[in-house]
Amino acid sequence: MNQKKKLVVVGSVAIDWVITPHAEREESVGGAATYFSMAASHHTPVHLVGVVGKDFPKQALAEMKQAGVDLEGLEVEENALTFRWKGRYHENMNQRDTLETHLNCFESFSPKLPESYKNADMLFLANIQPNLQLQVLEQMNTRPGLVGLDTMNLWIDIASDDLRAVVSKVDVLTINEEEALQMTGSMSLLDAAKEIRKIGPKILVIKRGEYGALLFGPEENDLFAAPAMPLADVHDPTGAGDCFAGGFMGYLCGAQDQNSETLRKAVIWGSVMASFCVQGFSYDTILELNAEKIEARYKEFVALTQF
Amino acid sequence: MNQKKKLVVVGSVAIDWVITPHAEREESVGGAATYFSMAASHHTPVHLVGVVGKDFPKQALAEMKQAGVDLEGLEVEENALTFRWKGRYHENMNQRDTLETHLNCFESFSPKLPESYKNADMLFLANIQPNLQLQVLEQMNTRPGLVGLDTMNLWIDIASDDLRAVVSKVDVLTINEEEALQMTGSMSLLDAAKEIRKIGPKILVIKRGEYGALLFGPEENDLFAAPAMPLADVHDPTGAGDCFAGGFMGYLCGAQDQNSETLRKAVIWGSVMASFCVQGFSYDTILELNAEKIEARYKEFVALTQF
Repeated sequence: MNQKKKLVVVGSVAIDWVITPHAEREESVGGAATYFSMAASHHTPVHLVGVVGKDFPKQALAEMKQAGVDLEGLEVEENALTFRWKGRYHENMNQRDTLETHLNCFESFSPKLPESYKNADMLFLANIQPNLQLQVLEQMNTRPGLVGLDTMNLWIDIASDDLRAVVSKVDVLTINEEEALQMTGSMSLLDAAKEIRKIGPKILVIKRGEYGALLFGPEENDLFAAPAMPLADVHDPTGAGDCFAGGFMGYLCGAQDQNSETLRKAVIWGSVMASFCVQGFSYDTILELNAEKIEARYKEFVALTQF
Repeated sequence: MNQKKKLVVVGSVAIDWVITPHAEREESVGGAATYFSMAASHHTPVHLVGVVGKDFPKQALAEMKQAGVDLEGLEVEENALTFRWKGRYHENMNQRDTLETHLNCFESFSPKLPESYKNADMLFLANIQPNLQLQVLEQMNTRPGLVGLDTMNLWIDIASDDLRAVVSKVDVLTINEEEALQMTGSMSLLDAAKEIRKIGPKILVIKRGEYGALLFGPEENDLFAAPAMPLADVHDPTGAGDCFAGGFMGYLCGAQDQNSETLRKAVIWGSVMASFCVQGFSYDTILELNAEKIEARYKEFVALTQF
């Protein structure tokens, strides 16, 4: 039977202030673990580890629960504010400037996994301080069958050793192309992939924003290129990479294996969720999805790529 | 039978001075029509219209003829120098600065088509002044079955009306993504494609460099995304777009139809030629190709994209 596996994610849960060339949302529920969970929940139940402050909207908690996200692992810190990020996207939506970052409740966060999380089949260490990612991995009773990790340029800059330590322990790394080059000091993505494999992960997904993603599979020379869906209505790119990871890991939770064919399909399911994500602020578009809409977008990817 | 069609191309034939972060070639045979011809000649005989000066290397003429490029339409202007371009690529090879451009023999060039060219089945108006492209099209005895055109930002800037006039008469436009947005004043490629269809071309290929190409087919909503081949050894991106067009049009010359499936395969054949082009200076790598190597790269594209 197609028994779905237990998926745990740790990462930021945030309130963003997002400014795009066309619109702005001041209290936009965000965070890597939030986006990841909401996307993955369309494939499998998700168990979230994170922290929010007293200002985190109750409605968002209700929506996440309703979507199938288990929040037993989400601490609510009554004496602190939620992690906040403020950023502005450039005209072409490909680049953004961070205007403000307030760690708030994440400054003193020490994740404590609920007992029921410690036997997860799969674990995703979404973007957050590398030492927190490592703490979560180390609290597992048994090493999950598949561990993925996402990160960002900030940690490559200021916590490079911690990052390498945790990356060396995971199976899948998802990372932006500039970050892959930065992290490895490489001039080409093929060279970066070689260096990252040496650190540890046997599966690598390089995210290229509106240009899609490259999958370096577990076998030598297994390379897959997926496009992003061309869209006329990109409202807010925030969280696209996290939704990608959610679709990717969520699909793998329901799959029988992790061979090249399955991983390639997982990349497309990730791309499907990312394509929906950017069409609205926060997780607005992800929230209103159903199986029919998701399946239709998957078929659009098939039509977009077959020759 | 698979009767190959007669393919004519007009465009620049040049001597380039190419500077990359890793190497430099001072007298590098280039030009849009040169690259196009050398790439297309692996699929079909090509007939070239253009002009060079007394300084154009005899060896290059011999190599082009040997490759199957008919040079009856190439004027040799004994009182002028060849068109020359000097440029420097940035560290990531995605961007370049033009350091010098000398039109030289192209300043007074007025193309005169040999009689044998005037009944061509297919015509490609490679990058050059739009009014020269139009002159060539108007000299055809009968309108070719398929007319393609490529251009660059310079003509969008300084010869916008001439460019629109000739673009309105062609079937296929190949253009870089920044240029597509610039030419139409659009914010998304989908909107740009709509605007370009209104001008005339029913088939549009948007080139995205290392990210591949998007094909907007003749039917509404027929959209195809092809990746570029990830490479560790990009030596010189000059001419990649022209080799793409050569592979694309060359393949169509041998094809039975121009339906969506055929056009998608043509985009992959174009991508194959572009991928070889960037692996060496000038047309070095294109010159030494054979059917076996080309077929092997095509299969690599299949492996890169199937899921």
